[in-house]
Amino acid sequence: MKKKSRFLHTPVEPFAVEAGLTADQLLLRMERISFQGRNLATAYRVWNKMLQDDVTIFLGMAGALSAGGLRLIVAHLIANRYVDCLVSTGANLYHDLHETRGRRHYVGSPHVDDTTLADERIDRVYDTFASEEEFVENDNWIADFTASLETRPYTTREFLHLLGGHLWKTTGRDGILTAAYRANVPIFCPAIADSSIGMGISQARQRKADTGLIDIIGDVVESANLIIRRPRTASIVLGGGTPKNFINQASVQAEFYCAEVSGHRYALQIVTDVPHFGGASGSSLEEAQSWGKLAADAARVSVQSDATIALPILVSALAATAPPLLGQRKMPVFTLTSRVMTIDGQKVPHDHFEEVNEPAV
Amino acid sequence: MKKKSRFLHTPVEPFAVEAGLTADQLLLRMERISFQGRNLATAYRVWNKMLQDDVTIFLGMAGALSAGGLRLIVAHLIANRYVDCLVSTGANLYHDLHETRGRRHYVGSPHVDDTTLADERIDRVYDTFASEEEFVENDNWIADFTASLETRPYTTREFLHLLGGHLWKTTGRDGILTAAYRANVPIFCPAIADSSIGMGISQARQRKADTGLIDIIGDVVESANLIIRRPRTASIVLGGGTPKNFINQASVQAEFYCAEVSGHRYALQIVTDVPHFGGASGSSLEEAQSWGKLAADAARVSVQSDATIALPILVSALAATAPPLLGQRKMPVFTLTSRVMTIDGQKVPHDHFEEVNEPAV
Amino acid sequence: MKKKSRFLHTPVEPFAVEAGLTADQLLLRMERISFQGRNLATAYRVWNKMLQDDVTIFLGMAGALSAGGLRLIVAHLIANRYVDCLVSTGANLYHDLHETRGRRHYVGSPHVDDTTLADERIDRVYDTFASEEEFVENDNWIADFTASLETRPYTTREFLHLLGGHLWKTTGRDGILTAAYRANVPIFCPAIADSSIGMGISQARQRKADTGLIDIIGDVVESANLIIRRPRTASIVLGGGTPKNFINQASVQAEFYCAEVSGHRYALQIVTDVPHFGGASGSSLEEAQSWGKLAADAARVSVQSDATIALPILVSALAATAPPLLGQRKMPVFTLTSRVMTIDGQKVPHDHFEEVNEPAV
Amino acid sequence: MKKKSRFLHTPVEPFAVEAGLTADQLLLRMERISFQGRNLATAYRVWNKMLQDDVTIFLGMAGALSAGGLRLIVAHLIANRYVDCLVSTGANLYHDLHETRGRRHYVGSPHVDDTTLADERIDRVYDTFASEEEFVENDNWIADFTASLETRPYTTREFLHLLGGHLWKTTGRDGILTAAYRANVPIFCPAIADSSIGMGISQARQRKADTGLIDIIGDVVESANLIIRRPRTASIVLGGGTPKNFINQASVQAEFYCAEVSGHRYALQIVTDVPHFGGASGSSLEEAQSWGKLAADAARVSVQSDATIALPILVSALAATAPPLLGQRKMPVFTLTSRVMTIDGQKVPHDHFEEVNEPAV
Repeated sequence: MKKKSRFLHTPVEPFAVEAGLTADQLLLRMERISFQGRNLATAYRVWNKMLQDDVTIFLGMAGALSAGGLRLIVAHLIANRYVDCLVSTGANLYHDLHETRGRRHYVGSPHVDDTTLADERIDRVYDTFASEEEFVENDNWIADFTASLETRPYTTREFLHLLGGHLWKTTGRDGILTAAYRANVPIFCPAIADSSIGMGISQARQRKADTGLIDIIGDVVESANLIIRRPRTASIVLGGGTPKNFINQASVQAEFYCAEVSGHRYALQIVTDVPHFGGASGSSLEEAQSWGKLAADAARVSVQSDATIALPILVSALAATAPPLLGQRKMPVFTLTSRVMTIDGQKVPHDHFEEVNEPAV
Repeated sequence: MKKKSRFLHTPVEPFAVEAGLTADQLLLRMERISFQGRNLATAYRVWNKMLQDDVTIFLGMAGALSAGGLRLIVAHLIANRYVDCLVSTGANLYHDLHETRGRRHYVGSPHVDDTTLADERIDRVYDTFASEEEFVENDNWIADFTASLETRPYTTREFLHLLGGHLWKTTGRDGILTAAYRANVPIFCPAIADSSIGMGISQARQRKADTGLIDIIGDVVESANLIIRRPRTASIVLGGGTPKNFINQASVQAEFYCAEVSGHRYALQIVTDVPHFGGASGSSLEEAQSWGKLAADAARVSVQSDATIALPILVSALAATAPPLLGQRKMPVFTLTSRVMTIDGQKVPHDHFEEVNEPAV
Repeated sequence: MKKKSRFLHTPVEPFAVEAGLTADQLLLRMERISFQGRNLATAYRVWNKMLQDDVTIFLGMAGALSAGGLRLIVAHLIANRYVDCLVSTGANLYHDLHETRGRRHYVGSPHVDDTTLADERIDRVYDTFASEEEFVENDNWIADFTASLETRPYTTREFLHLLGGHLWKTTGRDGILTAAYRANVPIFCPAIADSSIGMGISQARQRKADTGLIDIIGDVVESANLIIRRPRTASIVLGGGTPKNFINQASVQAEFYCAEVSGHRYALQIVTDVPHFGGASGSSLEEAQSWGKLAADAARVSVQSDATIALPILVSALAATAPPLLGQRKMPVFTLTSRVMTIDGQKVPHDHFEEVNEPAV
Repeated sequence: MKKKSRFLHTPVEPFAVEAGLTADQLLLRMERISFQGRNLATAYRVWNKMLQDDVTIFLGMAGALSAGGLRLIVAHLIANRYVDCLVSTGANLYHDLHETRGRRHYVGSPHVDDTTLADERIDRVYDTFASEEEFVENDNWIADFTASLETRPYTTREFLHLLGGHLWKTTGRDGILTAAYRANVPIFCPAIADSSIGMGISQARQRKADTGLIDIIGDVVESANLIIRRPRTASIVLGGGTPKNFINQASVQAEFYCAEVSGHRYALQIVTDVPHFGGASGSSLEEAQSWGKLAADAARVSVQSDATIALPILVSALAATAPPLLGQRKMPVFTLTSRVMTIDGQKVPHDHFEEVNEPAV
C-alpha cells in the first residue's frame, strides 16, 4: 500500500451531537473540525497554555462589548486573574461605568427609525438602546470626579485606577473598572480622548480650567517598562482597534531598550476585520511576527468571530478547567494608587524607559 | 419621576460566567446580550418554536460544511427529524460520501505552499486537506453507480435517494446521504452539475453515453408541489448559496399555483455574507419579505457567524431540549424510491404544478 | 552604506491627483499603491496580458450584476470578444432578459419597509426594485418559448443560445443573452434550476408535461471537452458562486482525460467573500493551485471589491487599450445552434469526454 | 394601463462602456447603477454639494492609507481646502513623515514568510514592506524635535502643527503634515499615544524626563469649540477608527453647549467594516442620527469599499469639477502656531467650552 502524504496526518473528526455537553466539552469536540470552529477550540487550548506559563497576560478590548453584555465576563477575567493588564477603548469603560452606576442598556433593534430615536433621546448601538439623558448624567459624574483630583498630570493607568476606586466606594458593584480596582490590575486607555470618558474629563474644565491633564505618553512609557521588568508576555485581543496596537507597540518599544524582550510568547485574537485592506485591526498574527511584536515560535490563533458569540463560550469553558491553573499562576503584583506604579515591588517609571542593556540599534 | 421611553423596556443582561454550563444554558444566558451572540440565542428559540408548530422544515446548506466536520450534525438533524427536507450543494454531499466511504479529510493549515500540495496531489480547503487520489476513486464509484441505473431522467431528489441507499448498503455508515435515505428525507441538489457529484455522474457517460440525465426542472416542480401539498413551511439556511434561493423560490413558485401558500412562517439563517453587495447569499430576511418568500409576520433571525462555530453550539443546545418536541412533531411522511415521490400518501408530480386554485395573476 | 534588503526593491508610488485622468490612466497610477487599489491595477495588467496570449477566456458571473446595472458591460465584453465563454447564474441571465424585453429595474433604497413593498408587489434586491408582475410575465414568456421547442434534452449551452436567438429576433436589443447569441459565445448555467429562468422553464410543463428537460451533465462534459480541444485557458470570475467552481472543475475534469491540460494560465477574480470561512466563493487563487485548477506559474490576481465599483473602471480602462489586442486575438470559433456544438470546426461531445491520452490515474 | 408603483420611479441605467472616460464621467455613469458603485457616485455628488455650502469640513482617516500610497491625495485635499480639519490616526501621520523625510514604503506581498522578514528587519503591512531601521531613525528624529520644545502641555493640534512646520523647514517636501502646516489646517490625533508618533514622543523622555506632555483633553475641548464657533459642519470619514468617533463626539459635545449645533449636515464614509457586530467603525450613518451626530435631514452616503480603490477615483473626479467651487468656498481661517488656536480671528479655548446658550440639560 502507498505511503500516506505527510500532509494527511490528523483526520478531521466530525462533531458528534450529544445532549448535556458543557462549554469545555463542546470546545474539545471542535478541536478537530475546521475553519473558525477549530480556531475557537484552539483559542481555548492556547489560553489554558498561557495560564501554565510564567507570562504577563495583556487583554485588549475594542468594539461595543460592555454595552453588548460582555462586561461581567471581562470583570470575571480580571477578578480571577486570567489576565494581568487591560487595555481598552474608552467606550467600553464608559458603558461599564454606566451599568455599575445602576443604569442599563436595553435590548433594541437595528430596524427602527433613527430620527424617532433621536426625538426621544435614545442612542442606538446596532441592536441596543440607551438613554442619552443618563449618559449626560454620567458625564457630569466623571467631570465632578475629575475636578476633585489634585491638579497634575495623570496617566490613564492612574486615573482609571482612581476612577475605579471611586466607583467601587460609591456603588459597591461589580464591573470592569471596579474589578480592576479591587484586583490591582492596571487599565490603559490610549484613546481615552476619543470616548465619553474623555468627554466627561473635558467637562471638568468647565469647573476648573487646568484640570484633566492626561499623560498618555506616560502610559506608553509605563506599558513598555512593565514588559522590560517582566519580559515574557502574552496578548489576548478582542476586536482590534487601539488596544491591539498599544499592546503590540509596548512589546516593540520594550525590546528597543531590553534585548531580552522578543515579542509576545502567546497571541490570541478574536476579530471580525480582515487582513486584506491593510488595517491594523484585521492584521494577521503572522504579519505581527515581521515587526517582532510576536515571537517567531509564539503559540497563536486568530478567531474570526463576533466576540459576543466567541467570548461567552470560551470563558465558560475556561471557568471549568482554569481554576487549578489560576491557583498556581505566577502573576505579577501591582500597586497602582499613585503617579508611579510598581510591579513586583519595583517602580515602573513613566518618565523614562528602563535601559536593561544597550539599545539594540 | 419621568416616564421611561417605550424603547427602553428590556435591559441587556450581562453574561455571567459560571463553570459547567451546558450548551442550552449558555444560549439562554445569551438571549439578552447584544449583536450576534443575541442572534444565536434567538436562533435557538426560533428553532424550538418551529418544532412545536405544524410546518415542513427545509434545511439549506452551502459552504464546505461536510469537509469541515459538520456532516454528522446534519445527519443528526435529519435522523431525528429536526428537519424534513435538505437542499444542499453537491460538494457537501460529495465530501459526506467521501467520509461515509471510509476516507477522511485532514487537519491542515492555510499557511502552506500550494504548489507543494499540488505536487503531492493534496487538495486544500482553507485549513483542511484531502487526497486527490481518493477523490478520483470516489468519482469512479459514483460513475459506476450512475451507469448501473436504468437509463431515464432522474430528479436529483430521486437520484440522491438511490445513491444514499446504495451507500448505506455498501457501507452501513452514518452520514448525510445515508441518514436521509434511512429517514426518508428528500434531498434536492439544484446545482448538482457544479460539484464532484456532477463530475462523477458525467464520467458515467464514458461507460454509457446516454446515462446521467438529471431532471433538475423536475426538482423545481417537485419542491413547489411539496409546499402546495403542505403550505406551512420553515426555512433554515446555513451559508446561503443555491440552497437558500432554491428553498425560497419553491415557496414563491408554490404561491403562484396555490394562494394558501404565503411565504415561510419561520426563517433562520447562519451566514457570513453581507447584504450591501446585493448578492442572494447575504440578502436579509427583510428583503425576502418583499418577494413574498417570507410571511409578513414570520419569526426570523439572521446570525452572522461561521457555521463551524454557530452550528455545534446550536444543535448541542437543541439536543437537550428538543427531544420531547420531536416526539410530538406532526412531520410529513415521504416515499422517495421512485420517479414520483409522495408526501403523506399523496403523489408529488414532477411534470406539472398542482393548481389548488386559480393562479394569482 | 548598507546594502538594501532584497525585499525593499520597488517603492510604493503615492497616487498623484490630476484632473482629466481617464480610466486606464487611473489604473496605471494605482499600480504601485497598496492593498485592493493595487490589485485592481494588477487585474487590468493581467487581463491585457491574457488578450495577447493564445488562451480561451472564461468569464464567470454571480451576484446581482445584471439587476445592478452591469449587464451592458458584460454584453460589451462578449460582443468584442474580451471573453470566449460565459458561465453565469440564472438570475443574471433572467434580469438581463427582463431589461432586453424592455422592462426595467429601479433605483430604490435598502431603508424601506419590506412588507409595504410586498403589498405593492415590488421585489427588492438591496437598493434596487422591480415589479413582480413584470417578472411573472417574463416567466410566462420563457415558458412559452420552452414549450415551443422540440421535446428532447438540451444542455443549458444549447438552450440559452436558442433563447438568446429568440430574444434577439423579438426585441433586436443589446444584452448579455443577445450579444452571446450574435457573437456565437457559449453560455453555461450550471444552476439554472435555481433561478427564475428555471422557474419559467418549469412552468412550461403546465403546457406540455414532458418539456423542459435540461441536460446539465451534458454541460459538464461539453465544458471539459472545450478545454481538452484547446488546453490553454484563462479564468475571470466576478463574485464567486457556482460559475467560479464550474470553470475550475471544467479544467480539473479536462486534465483527467488530457494530460496537456494543466490548470488556467491566468486567473482574475473580483470577489467580496473571504477565504477563512472555507467557502468556495471566497477561496484564494493559491488554494486553487493545490487542486490543479490553476497552473503553478499562472498570472493571477484577486480583487476584494464589489464588482459594481471595480468592473466599470476596469472595463472602461480596457476599452482604451484592448482594441488593438482584440484585433489580433486568436480566439476560438464556435457553432452553437444544435445539440452538438463545435469549436474551431471540431465537434464538442456532450455524451463522452474526449480522451486525448491515457487518463492520468 | 395600470399605474406604476411610486417605488418604480427612476430606472437603473446600465453602465455603457466607452473608451476615454475620465474619472468624473465614470462616476456620472455610475449614478444610476446599484450597490456600492452607486454609492461611490453618490459620494462624488455629496462632496460636490458640501463644497457649495457654508460648512466646516472634517476629514477622518484610519487604516494604513499613508503607507498604502494615498498620502498625496490627502495632502492635495488639504492644500486645496477640499477639507478644513484633519483627524487622523498616528500611524497615518507617521508613515507620511517617513516618506516626507525621503524614505519609502515598498511594494511587497502578503505571501512571504514573516519570520524571514523579521530576520531582515522588514516590517510588513499586508502587501507593503518597510525598513525597521529607518523607522527607528524616524523615532529618534521625532524624539529630538519633541525634546527641543519648551516644556509644557501641547494639544496634538498644536504639536502636529509645529511638527509639520519643522518637517517643512527641514525637507521642503509635500505630504500630509507639511500641507496642513502650509495651509494652516488643524490636525487632531486623539490616539496619538497608540502610534509610532507616540513612541517617538515617549523616547524624548529619555532625553528630558518631563517632556512630551500631550493635552489630548485639550483637543476634545478645542474640537468642540471649533463647531460651537461655526456650527454647520460636514464629516468625511475614511476607514472608521478613532477619527470617525472623534469627529462625531465633537459635534455631540458642541451641541451640549450650543443649541444651534445639531449634527453634521453632510456625512460621507468609505469603510470596510460592517454594522452588525456593533463596533463604531462599521456603524451606519442612520445610527449616527439617533445620537444627534448627524442632522435628521443630512445628505449622507456610506461606501463599502477599500479606500485604496474608492479614494483615487473619487478625488480624481473632484479634481475635474471642484476647482470653481473651491474658489468660492467660504472656508474657516485658522491660526495654529500657539497654545491657543483661532478660527476666523476668534480664540478657540482648550480649557473650557464656549457656552453660547444654556446647556441642553
